[in-house]
Amino acid sequence: MKTYKLTLMYDGGCFRGWQRQGNTNLTIQGILEDTASEILQERVEINGSGRTDAGVHAKGQTASMVVSTSFHSRDFLEQMNKELPDELKIKDIVLEKNGFHARLSAKAKCYEYNIDTRQKQGVFGRKYSLSYPYELDLCAMRQAASYLVGRQDFAAFTDLKEDKSTVRTIYKVEIEQRQDTIKLVYCGTGFLYHMVRILTGTLLEVGRKKKDPEEIKEILASKERANAGFCAPAKGLFLKEVYY
Amino acid sequence: MKTYKLTLMYDGGCFRGWQRQGNTNLTIQGILEDTASEILQERVEINGSGRTDAGVHAKGQTASMVVSTSFHSRDFLEQMNKELPDELKIKDIVLEKNGFHARLSAKAKCYEYNIDTRQKQGVFGRKYSLSYPYELDLCAMRQAASYLVGRQDFAAFTDLKEDKSTVRTIYKVEIEQRQDTIKLVYCGTGFLYHMVRILTGTLLEVGRKKKDPEEIKEILASKERANAGFCAPAKGLFLKEVYY
Repeated sequence: MKTYKLTLMYDGGCFRGWQRQGNTNLTIQGILEDTASEILQERVEINGSGRTDAGVHAKGQTASMVVSTSFHSRDFLEQMNKELPDELKIKDIVLEKNGFHARLSAKAKCYEYNIDTRQKQGVFGRKYSLSYPYELDLCAMRQAASYLVGRQDFAAFTDLKEDKSTVRTIYKVEIEQRQDTIKLVYCGTGFLYHMVRILTGTLLEVGRKKKDPEEIKEILASKERANAGFCAPAKGLFLKEVYY
Repeated sequence: MKTYKLTLMYDGGCFRGWQRQGNTNLTIQGILEDTASEILQERVEINGSGRTDAGVHAKGQTASMVVSTSFHSRDFLEQMNKELPDELKIKDIVLEKNGFHARLSAKAKCYEYNIDTRQKQGVFGRKYSLSYPYELDLCAMRQAASYLVGRQDFAAFTDLKEDKSTVRTIYKVEIEQRQDTIKLVYCGTGFLYHMVRILTGTLLEVGRKKKDPEEIKEILASKERANAGFCAPAKGLFLKEVYY
């Protein structure tokens, strides 16, 4: 058996999220597994570094694949890309040590969220950014962002409470402005369900002065979802890179 | 009567080209005229700097509009953008001297053509670039491009021969490489029907060594469309700016 790491990009607007669901072949995992199984003539399982929601895009999602069939990586990559839909592409494939797992071996992840603050959103970014036509206080947003960094309990920033730990470490939250577009960059050990989108909604509410930057500390301490901001839509979010 | 200049951006893939055609409201001119007429409550005519073909995008198309109704430019721009589809946006509106005409007053135009040379096209640019997965000799392409500059008869580089002059002046043709994407930039006094797309197809054939750079001179002299290269698809082409 050999273990491979795939690096993927996809336009999330064209799929029903990452995770395979029963019969539907409209999920990214489902399409990848079916295509690889067809090419390698064995039942292939492909595990992502995480399950991006429907609508979330990826520039550098990773996935692991364990197979018994021998193949030439470049040929396999070319064949896969030929068969895959235009909106899903394998950027790279590398052989890993056995035991490698895209999710369990991951050390950190970076996400980006794009916001267009113009009165009317630019036509070329409309499927890849949130239209938020308001004046934003970036200074307040940066102050709020600084309180998110570190190892903390992010229970207030998720829409799914399981019996698992909600403690995560955020390494950095950066706010970059480029003309009429604002990019929020999040890097951390991992993120809870909807976490990046709720963090974004909360920072935007700070930017509009609906929330005070200092409130972030209280929201974190409260562990109450209701205290955090709105869940920003999927279409502005990109999984940028997974680090091992 | 007052004359205004509109600056527009649109995703050409969503419309049937610029020019109003009978009843269809799927053309850019048709949608703009109908929306402006509704808002201003008078029959408004809007004339573009040129008729972009179906599928061609614009980052800075211009159009002139002569109206008798008085209005506040900012309010009109906001109202228009509210009513227009997401894929069409007015970037700016300015009052011009009477007699201004978007096409007749134009001094020069710049177009961009995007080419993705990866084996499989990037998923986010797939509607805005040509997938051309070949190794290209940029040096040969730049040499060929240099022969296009100047005041010349471009009869060989158009798909529509009318009884009009086919002489145009090209100021520059630049070839920019960014990782796996190549951008061709064309600036000139004006361009014939399909001219930028045929110039692009011809330069790409030079890049693949199907044509010698020196052949450009012969193609120009021949005035024969059949001697030039293929007409590159509309989706890679952007009207970038019109100069007055």
